[in-house]
Amino acid sequence: MLVASDTQSLRIDIERIKKNILELATIGRSESDRGIYRMAFTDADMEGKRWLLDHIDEADLSSGSDGAGNIFGRIIPEGEAKEAPSILMGSHIDTVPCAGALDGSLGVVVALECLRTIRASGVELKRPLELVAFSDEEGRFGGMFGSEAFCGLISPAVFDRKDLDGVRLGDALLKQGMDPIKALDAARSRESVEAYLELHIEQGPVLDRKKLSVGVVENITGLFKWQVRFRGDANHAGTTPMEMRNDAFMGLADFAHELPRIIDENGSPQSRATIGKAQILPGSPNTVPGLVEFSLDVRDTDASVLEELSRSCQKALAASARRRGLKFDYDELSLIAPVQCDEGLVKILGEEAEALSLKSMHMPSGAAHDAQILGGMTRMGMIFAPSRGGKSHSPEEWTAWEDVEAASNLALRALLRLGLAE
Amino acid sequence: MLVASDTQSLRIDIERIKKNILELATIGRSESDRGIYRMAFTDADMEGKRWLLDHIDEADLSSGSDGAGNIFGRIIPEGEAKEAPSILMGSHIDTVPCAGALDGSLGVVVALECLRTIRASGVELKRPLELVAFSDEEGRFGGMFGSEAFCGLISPAVFDRKDLDGVRLGDALLKQGMDPIKALDAARSRESVEAYLELHIEQGPVLDRKKLSVGVVENITGLFKWQVRFRGDANHAGTTPMEMRNDAFMGLADFAHELPRIIDENGSPQSRATIGKAQILPGSPNTVPGLVEFSLDVRDTDASVLEELSRSCQKALAASARRRGLKFDYDELSLIAPVQCDEGLVKILGEEAEALSLKSMHMPSGAAHDAQILGGMTRMGMIFAPSRGGKSHSPEEWTAWEDVEAASNLALRALLRLGLAE
Repeated sequence: MLVASDTQSLRIDIERIKKNILELATIGRSESDRGIYRMAFTDADMEGKRWLLDHIDEADLSSGSDGAGNIFGRIIPEGEAKEAPSILMGSHIDTVPCAGALDGSLGVVVALECLRTIRASGVELKRPLELVAFSDEEGRFGGMFGSEAFCGLISPAVFDRKDLDGVRLGDALLKQGMDPIKALDAARSRESVEAYLELHIEQGPVLDRKKLSVGVVENITGLFKWQVRFRGDANHAGTTPMEMRNDAFMGLADFAHELPRIIDENGSPQSRATIGKAQILPGSPNTVPGLVEFSLDVRDTDASVLEELSRSCQKALAASARRRGLKFDYDELSLIAPVQCDEGLVKILGEEAEALSLKSMHMPSGAAHDAQILGGMTRMGMIFAPSRGGKSHSPEEWTAWEDVEAASNLALRALLRLGLAE
Repeated sequence: MLVASDTQSLRIDIERIKKNILELATIGRSESDRGIYRMAFTDADMEGKRWLLDHIDEADLSSGSDGAGNIFGRIIPEGEAKEAPSILMGSHIDTVPCAGALDGSLGVVVALECLRTIRASGVELKRPLELVAFSDEEGRFGGMFGSEAFCGLISPAVFDRKDLDGVRLGDALLKQGMDPIKALDAARSRESVEAYLELHIEQGPVLDRKKLSVGVVENITGLFKWQVRFRGDANHAGTTPMEMRNDAFMGLADFAHELPRIIDENGSPQSRATIGKAQILPGSPNTVPGLVEFSLDVRDTDASVLEELSRSCQKALAASARRRGLKFDYDELSLIAPVQCDEGLVKILGEEAEALSLKSMHMPSGAAHDAQILGGMTRMGMIFAPSRGGKSHSPEEWTAWEDVEAASNLALRALLRLGLAE
């Protein structure tokens, strides 16, 4: 049996990760667009879960699942260590429609490889290690279902959530032979978990542009998402003088134009503001727009900055409306608080990246992850692997294998360090 | 028989105009939305044409139609005057879908009333007067078909124009028992026409806001209509830092924001610029827009100003694209030159409005009219009646009867003055 000091030279086997990733990518893959369709609780997703359970068994780990369909693979040490709180590492294997091969799957496969490597080394752990694959992270039924169930955040109301085709989550579970009410039993006690680590692709361009191999995540952005409406008057584009118009689109243009200033004045380098969707009515080239309805998605890693951005956006909307003689109102579609990663884990990941001489940086996560949910329950840390060209959620999604290897070895060392600590 | 000096006291009969307008409005009216559906060469439109011919006959005018379906009602004087070039007055009775009662119909009914009044007075004219109702002004098949045919501007290619349901103009004419090729015979010689007068509702808010009864039109705006595309990169709204974006929508917002400046610097008080339609792709709140496609409709009454506005818009589009790292291109969908009303007619209309003590102003027309086409063939003048609330092309379209009466008496006096001139 290895002792702790011997673990310094342990490394993952990139060839096994490659093989697993490429094999898992065949499950749910469309022959026509090469995209992967493994949406939560579809037959393809269930086949992915079985594939994972088989590989957990093959790796001589203790396999299991809970009522929310979360899959586990465990190394349970002997003696007293068996009762200590676990270190969890994982992500999710469900996908958006027409997905790429990595996204959450990479984090699950890397966790499998880390546990496989540790298992084979025979190192004596001070606590259980658990691989986890959470259900419906991507949102067929709203997203984060598995991690929310794990953290005890769901109620029976969740089963009435519907997918885009109107299928109820409860019915989708029944159809896969699962008893919905058992998802409520998936809640784990805080005492049983010591920390959660997640490796994920960045889904953004930063690491790729900076030619770095890994990112140590410091925090996950919060966001507010509004549906905004400007109401003016639809009039003839030729006969209505400029000064007699109440042009709803010009209200939107004025507001959008203010966004860079709003961020400069009230935001941080982590602030993002996006108008991704807009409908202009009546939508005729000859008619001054009488109504625009648009989405506003604003993010930051700091709750007080986000609050300041929200206030500034309200002021700018009101001013644009006043200037153009419009009425405005908005609905808040989402409000998610930023989550800080555990300082101790950020420190460990930084030190281990340095020990491995990896080209790395500390950075925020602009996207939501299961880690965001776990951060409310336990110490949480995240590792990012670069996304080539910043692409994700598409068959173009990719990460160089050498970067996968680097990020995986960082995950292994962090996991070992946590598993070997008293 | 009246002599010229006795005509000063001639007035139209507003009750007859009311009766005609309200009767014509029942043809093609929908019981559900109260809108009028008398699109060119539909059964309702043909019924309208028959209604008009009946009323021309009843008024003891000489009725007729041409191969383009234009309807005429004439007073043809005796002797040499019979051979003199005519004064035409009219508009159109076809409608957009879900139209109001006035629009072109008012101009046709007023012309009918003017000829009826003059006919009954027995005044000795120096030239023929003709009432005209032109076919398809509103554009079921592109618009201005009747006036273009009258001015000799069509070729057989016009019969392949299709409506929104894919019906060919040629087939629509055949279905109504008309021989399409005869539309080419509708061309009238320049020598047969001395001047064209059109009374139309303003379709804008200016007269209504200023509480005036009539507008003397000085010119009809030209326009250019572009379909513009900005191409950037669709990226994740959370993970893509602001400075790494190529946000196509922000290119549009920047450009739209510049429009007031572009008009201030390069336009005139008559300039109009409208972005009435925009499509944003992929159109998800979570995704930075990768493509926007939008309409740009710019109008002015002066060709050189319009040209300057076109150049400025190109520069501003290029600058917005450069600033946001976008590609841009555009298609020119329309380019229509402004048309000046005849100075002599503008003077006559101004003088007669004053003689009648009407509250009036000189103004441009921001909308296109048959008069625009006639202006290329003969001396052309236009009278505007106020549009309540600036509304048109809807059942809400309305003009107070006292304003209709004022504008109609102005039309009568101008028509008499022209008809009595050598």
